Amino acid sequence: MRILVTGADGYIGFPLSMHLATRGFDVVGVDNYLRRKWVAEVGSHSATPIRSMMERWSAFERIFGKKISFEYGDLTNYGFVQYVLDKYKPETVIYLGQQASAPFSMIDVDHAVLTQMNNLVGTLNILHAIHEVVPCCHLIKLGSMGEYGSPNVDIPEGFFEVEYKGRKDTLLFPRQAFDDWYHWSKVYDSDNILMACRVWNLSATDIMQGVVYGTRTDEIVDEALLTRFDFDAVFGTAINRFCAQAVLGHILTPYGTGGQKRPVISLRDTIQCFVLAVDNQPLEGEYRVFNQFDEIYSIGGMAQMVMAVGKKLGFDTKIENIENPRVEDEQVHYYNPIHEKLYKLGFVATHRLEYELESMLTDLGKYRDRIVEKEEYILPTVYWREPAIL
Amino acid sequence: MRILVTGADGYIGFPLSMHLATRGFDVVGVDNYLRRKWVAEVGSHSATPIRSMMERWSAFERIFGKKISFEYGDLTNYGFVQYVLDKYKPETVIYLGQQASAPFSMIDVDHAVLTQMNNLVGTLNILHAIHEVVPCCHLIKLGSMGEYGSPNVDIPEGFFEVEYKGRKDTLLFPRQAFDDWYHWSKVYDSDNILMACRVWNLSATDIMQGVVYGTRTDEIVDEALLTRFDFDAVFGTAINRFCAQAVLGHILTPYGTGGQKRPVISLRDTIQCFVLAVDNQPLEGEYRVFNQFDEIYSIGGMAQMVMAVGKKLGFDTKIENIENPRVEDEQVHYYNPIHEKLYKLGFVATHRLEYELESMLTDLGKYRDRIVEKEEYILPTVYWREPAIL
Repeated sequence: MRILVTGADGYIGFPLSMHLATRGFDVVGVDNYLRRKWVAEVGSHSATPIRSMMERWSAFERIFGKKISFEYGDLTNYGFVQYVLDKYKPETVIYLGQQASAPFSMIDVDHAVLTQMNNLVGTLNILHAIHEVVPCCHLIKLGSMGEYGSPNVDIPEGFFEVEYKGRKDTLLFPRQAFDDWYHWSKVYDSDNILMACRVWNLSATDIMQGVVYGTRTDEIVDEALLTRFDFDAVFGTAINRFCAQAVLGHILTPYGTGGQKRPVISLRDTIQCFVLAVDNQPLEGEYRVFNQFDEIYSIGGMAQMVMAVGKKLGFDTKIENIENPRVEDEQVHYYNPIHEKLYKLGFVATHRLEYELESMLTDLGKYRDRIVEKEEYILPTVYWREPAIL
Repeated sequence: MRILVTGADGYIGFPLSMHLATRGFDVVGVDNYLRRKWVAEVGSHSATPIRSMMERWSAFERIFGKKISFEYGDLTNYGFVQYVLDKYKPETVIYLGQQASAPFSMIDVDHAVLTQMNNLVGTLNILHAIHEVVPCCHLIKLGSMGEYGSPNVDIPEGFFEVEYKGRKDTLLFPRQAFDDWYHWSKVYDSDNILMACRVWNLSATDIMQGVVYGTRTDEIVDEALLTRFDFDAVFGTAINRFCAQAVLGHILTPYGTGGQKRPVISLRDTIQCFVLAVDNQPLEGEYRVFNQFDEIYSIGGMAQMVMAVGKKLGFDTKIENIENPRVEDEQVHYYNPIHEKLYKLGFVATHRLEYELESMLTDLGKYRDRIVEKEEYILPTVYWREPAIL
């Protein structure tokens, strides 16, 4: 089976491409390196010294004896998307190539527009090109658990039965995303994909993914095959920032009360989920939603765990909550997303946060100098209600 | 009070601007004439011979003795939006200036992208500029009843109580728009506005408007003050197309079974609703939704009524259902949107469809030659599942 991976230079895209290739899939990567440019724009870099895309592919081929094809190009250019689908006629497209940072989208109007345009135009182009060129192709789209926000009711995987004034219907669960232009762009992508499934009978899996953590997969066996690790306040997740702070011996700084709950999953396990999605294509016309995560932690709980694991490894830190730059529900709140579909397909979590933190902190310890070089970018620079200080 | 009307050259925008000016508001119009260009692009023109924007303003000033300011510019240009808000410091922005045709958005990928980009970037720019320049300003945004699709339950005005697995929350009613890129773009606008109200405490009215019909308002007293009337398959509503067909003595052609139900409201009454919205600003931080319509008809029912009224006026026609170019629910279906908020503010319907059709057909009779000139554009040219034949 031929699989196109867009965003193949990214944190998930690169190890996922390697893993799919070692499993015998014919993998074609696509990227235009925008993530590298955006992280540079906000002043930072990956803690891990990642190689260029071309060096990565050669190293992978040298070590694993498998070749991954690659096309450089922009998904917002329809001609490019059409060309790639026509050239490779993939049976599966895994669409990861998007602007994926909430703070980046909140910098100013230009970044809000860039985020929504980049993400929506990419999706519209991919949907039109699949419809035109490879209508039976399975689209696997990376969405976010953040599309749901944190409602006071359980969160189903996609649709649910609405009862209102004595009548019933099955509707998509109302998505009230975390309040930033990025998370809302993912909601709009989801709706556009739903529509394409209904009108053009496309077959799509929309992955509502939790926060992904980890520095290792079975294929990351050489420094040339490291995946990126962002720790700055714009592109780094809370877990990543806490790990970077721990390695520096700095105080860990959860935003606000730290009561915000987040679903999480390890990099290895998210790759396992993608393989399950690839192996189980939904029906023609089916819009399938997976809530793809393993555990749920509060932001404060993550900081506690990083502190505890860090202590064992000799990184001594404290926790000090700072003013929340975002507008979000940070009090202790109900949060219970359902996640059953992947388990029914055979998913078994193999790496939990506590265990994985040990290898993350160990790996980051080796690149402490690279974190020191950019340590000023770990604390917030973008505020939801005030101008950014970038 | 100073009111900025974006899309002031449009079907609603022009008569609304005149009406607000005669009521004593200080009106500033904004437009870049894209609607005129788009209708020309698909080969057609307005049945009514509309004058240029500048001729319209002069005629209005001559007849009513009131001046309307005007700025030519594109809402997708942030510099322009910021300049206009800064120059006029409006207390209300009525935002009508969008690509508003479902078939236009379904022509091809370029028109899909154009529609979603034009509409979303306009909204992002207006929200950012209001936040930056006039944060207390009341944003009145023209949405569409089509954002809801046609669920099998009642449609509330905005939020509703969700009960799921024994727990409750108040969430935005899930919008499952009619399946075209245009209606979904309106859903995304609604969500972006909701977010701006929550994060920046903006005050907004989001109008879910039904299909608007009519050729007359109190201010349309001279041929120079006519508003546009589109009857082509891309920009004309079903009512407008049936009226054009009746005037030509052609067969009226509902799509599919004609069972599709649509909420409708006259041009005069929709203007009445806008005035009610202007006079009653929601609270700071409030995202208010109006379901703005008066009656509900099926598409087949509209055709029947046009045929009956036409007969009285000497336009003899028949009805012949044609294959539906769209993908939509066309069987007899449940449809019960709630519309109470505007009535509570004092709305009283003054013009019903049956009555208004008489004046529409009479007015169009005068411009029969202009319809004949473009009659080939009345039948469908854009198909949801096949390439367009434009």
